[in-house]
Amino acid sequence: MPGSIIALLTDFGTKDGYVASMKAVILAIAPDTIIVDITHEIPPQNISQAAFILETTYQSFPTDTIFVVVVDPGVGTQRRSLLMRTPYGRFLSPDNGLLTYVLRKYFWPLPSAEKPFAPIRVSIPDECIAVALTNPAYWRNPVSSTFEGRDVFAAVAAHVARGTCLNNFGDEITTLNVLQLPQLFDRDNQLTGAVLHIDHFGNLVTNIPNGKLHKRNIQVQVGGETVEGLSTTYGEHDGLVALVGSHGYLEIALVGGNASEVFGIGIGTLVRVSSLSYE
Amino acid sequence: MPGSIIALLTDFGTKDGYVASMKAVILAIAPDTIIVDITHEIPPQNISQAAFILETTYQSFPTDTIFVVVVDPGVGTQRRSLLMRTPYGRFLSPDNGLLTYVLRKYFWPLPSAEKPFAPIRVSIPDECIAVALTNPAYWRNPVSSTFEGRDVFAAVAAHVARGTCLNNFGDEITTLNVLQLPQLFDRDNQLTGAVLHIDHFGNLVTNIPNGKLHKRNIQVQVGGETVEGLSTTYGEHDGLVALVGSHGYLEIALVGGNASEVFGIGIGTLVRVSSLSYE
Amino acid sequence: MPGSIIALLTDFGTKDGYVASMKAVILAIAPDTIIVDITHEIPPQNISQAAFILETTYQSFPTDTIFVVVVDPGVGTQRRSLLMRTPYGRFLSPDNGLLTYVLRKYFWPLPSAEKPFAPIRVSIPDECIAVALTNPAYWRNPVSSTFEGRDVFAAVAAHVARGTCLNNFGDEITTLNVLQLPQLFDRDNQLTGAVLHIDHFGNLVTNIPNGKLHKRNIQVQVGGETVEGLSTTYGEHDGLVALVGSHGYLEIALVGGNASEVFGIGIGTLVRVSSLSYE
Repeated sequence: MPGSIIALLTDFGTKDGYVASMKAVILAIAPDTIIVDITHEIPPQNISQAAFILETTYQSFPTDTIFVVVVDPGVGTQRRSLLMRTPYGRFLSPDNGLLTYVLRKYFWPLPSAEKPFAPIRVSIPDECIAVALTNPAYWRNPVSSTFEGRDVFAAVAAHVARGTCLNNFGDEITTLNVLQLPQLFDRDNQLTGAVLHIDHFGNLVTNIPNGKLHKRNIQVQVGGETVEGLSTTYGEHDGLVALVGSHGYLEIALVGGNASEVFGIGIGTLVRVSSLSYE
Repeated sequence: MPGSIIALLTDFGTKDGYVASMKAVILAIAPDTIIVDITHEIPPQNISQAAFILETTYQSFPTDTIFVVVVDPGVGTQRRSLLMRTPYGRFLSPDNGLLTYVLRKYFWPLPSAEKPFAPIRVSIPDECIAVALTNPAYWRNPVSSTFEGRDVFAAVAAHVARGTCLNNFGDEITTLNVLQLPQLFDRDNQLTGAVLHIDHFGNLVTNIPNGKLHKRNIQVQVGGETVEGLSTTYGEHDGLVALVGSHGYLEIALVGGNASEVFGIGIGTLVRVSSLSYE
Repeated sequence: MPGSIIALLTDFGTKDGYVASMKAVILAIAPDTIIVDITHEIPPQNISQAAFILETTYQSFPTDTIFVVVVDPGVGTQRRSLLMRTPYGRFLSPDNGLLTYVLRKYFWPLPSAEKPFAPIRVSIPDECIAVALTNPAYWRNPVSSTFEGRDVFAAVAAHVARGTCLNNFGDEITTLNVLQLPQLFDRDNQLTGAVLHIDHFGNLVTNIPNGKLHKRNIQVQVGGETVEGLSTTYGEHDGLVALVGSHGYLEIALVGGNASEVFGIGIGTLVRVSSLSYE
C-alpha cells in the first residue's frame, strides 16, 4: 500500500533548492509519501494566481490528499498558518486567501469586491475543521524565520501523512481569510467578467463559469476583439475562439497561437458576453 | 514490488496545473504507479520535437513502461487517439505522428519527404498491436473536449497500469500516422542532413546517424562554419566540435558555449559531411 | 519499506530528455528508488553554483540519501568521477569541486583564494571514504562519451541504492578537488564578503555566515546601497532588508521586489558589514 499523497504548490521556483528541501523534510519524516508538484512557478507572492491554480487541480486528486500551498509574503510575521480538513482534502497554507476557491461553494457569491483580491474574514464552514499551526513539537528544529515552507508546512504535512490528529498541531480556529473575487455583472442581457489567468498556451481563462453561458448565439468581447459563437474545441476554425475550457470557465484562445501575446491581453481585462439568443 | 512506470511527455508547460491534474487522475486510479516526467516543455503543438525527444529517451526505460505522449493540436476533433503495445513499451498518444521514431526501424527509409514532417499513414508493424481509444468506460467522467490529456490519456494509462487488457479500450487498428522525416542525401562522397533539435546547451543535434559517419578525416559544414574531424568529447579543444552525441547522431557543439546562439543556427539548417578519407 | 532516496542535481535543464534518461536508468536497475530533483537549472557548467545549491539542501535529506551531482565541463576527458561516503550521505560527482561545501567543515578556512573558485586538491577527511568510478561492470553499456550522467552516474547510483559495496565501483582515492571559496576579510571592525548566489526571488545570498554577525547595530553595504540593522523576516518594513536567510548566511532582500534586478547587483558583488555596536 503506497503512502499518502502530498501535493505542493508554491512560488519558490525550481532553480534553487527550496522545493527539494521541503521534499527532503517530508521524506525524512514520512518516507513512503508520494509527492506531487502542482507547480512552483506562481509569480512571486501572487496569492490570487496560486489560489486559482489550486482551484483547477485539487478536485482531480483523491480526497485524502494533503495539499501544501505556500505563497507567503508575510512569512515570519504574525500572520497565521493553518491546517484545514475538508471533504475534498486536507490543506496547509498561510491564512492569506490561498484557499478561497476551495471554499467558494460555501461563500458564493461573496460580497461585491470593491477591492478585488483583498482578503476578508469568513467563518470556517461546518463541513470543515481547521487549526492554527502553533505547536512547535511538529516543526523542524530550528525554525528559520524566512522558510516556514520547509520548517513548518513540510514538516507538519509529513506528520499529517503519518496520521497525527489535527488537534495536535494547534488550537481550533473558527474563521479564515478568503479573497474578494472579481464579480460577474449580469445586466441588459450582457454578462461582464474578467480574465483571471493566462495559461502556458496564452489562452485567456475568465471568471465566467460554464453554467452562466447560453450555449448558442453568444458574442464574446475582450480587449477590442469580438468572437461569435461558442466552439467545443481549439481546432474548429482559425483565429480567436471562445469555449468552455477544462477548468469549467469561459476561455478565449487563438487557434495555433498565443492569444495573450498576439492581442496584448492580460489578467484583469474585462470580458463581455452578449447573448444573441433573444434577438 | 513497486507499480508500473508511467512516463509523461507533453507541451503543457509547468506553470499551470495541467500536468498535476494528469498525475492526480493517474494516482487516483493506480496509486502505486511511479510517474516520471520526460519533459513538458515541448514548444506548443510541435509534434516533431516531441517525437524526437521521445526517441532520445524511451530506450532507457524498462520495456514495460507506459508512455503518455500528448502534443495535440487537434484535441477534441475527430482525430484518433491510440494505445500501442510494442517490444519497447506501451505508448498512448493522439494519432498524429508522435510515435514516428519509435517505429522508424520498421519503416526506414521512409519515402523521400517532399513535405518534411507531414504525416503519412503506414501499417502497424507485426510486432506491435494497437487500438483506438473509443471506450469511454475507462475515461474520466465527464470528458472535457479540451483536456483529453487528463480525461482520456491519463485515465486510460492508469487502467493499463492496473492490468486492463488492450482490447478493452477500443477496437484494433491496422494503420497509424508517422511523420515524413527529412532525408539524408548521400552523393559525391558528401552526406547532407539537417539540424533536428537544439538542446538545452545549444548543441545542434542532426539527423545523421552514427553508422553513416566515417570516423576519420571528415569535415562538417553547418551555417557557414566548418569543423574538421570528429571529437569524442565536448572538452577536447576550443571552438566548434563535431561528435556523436548521446542520442547516437552527429552533433555540433561549441566548447563552453551555446553553438545555436553564437552562430545563429536553428532547427532545419542543412548539415554537410564530407569524407576526406579518400583524398 | 520504500527504497533509497536518490537526489539529482545537474545543469541539464528540463526541456530535453537528459534527466528523464537518468531516471529511466535508475528505475530499470533499482525500481523502488525514490528520486528527488534538487534542481536541473544550474547555469550550464557553473560548478560553484551547483556546489552552493547542494550546500543549501543536502542537510535536510536523510543521511542515507544518495546524491548525484553532475555539472561536468570535462565529461568524457580523463577527469575522475567519484563516489564518496560521508556521515551526511553518499555523493557521486565528477571530481571538480562540486562537493566543496559538503566538506567545508573539514577544510575551513581554506587557504586564501587568489583565484576564487579555482580548484585545489585536498585529502579526503578521515570520516569519509571515496572511490574513483573505474569499474565498467556497473555502467550502462555502451557508455556514451558525452553523457556519463546517464551511463555512469545514474547507473552506479542505482547499484549503490541496491546495496553494492563502495569498493566494488573502483579503487579508493585519498584526495579530491575542492573550490577555493571567496574569503571573508575581517578588519577594522568591518567584515567584507561577497554575493554568492541570487535566488529565484532576486534575494542576494552572501558568504557571510550567521555566526560572524553582530545581531544589533550593524550596517550592510552592497552595490552602493546601505541597510541599517538586521531584520528577522522579509515583511518587517519596506525597501531593502538584511537578514539571516534559511541557508544560514546573511541575505539582502527587497521587500515585495527583486533586489538583484532593481539594484543591478550580481554574483561576486562585494558586501561590507560594519558593526556599529562599539560606537
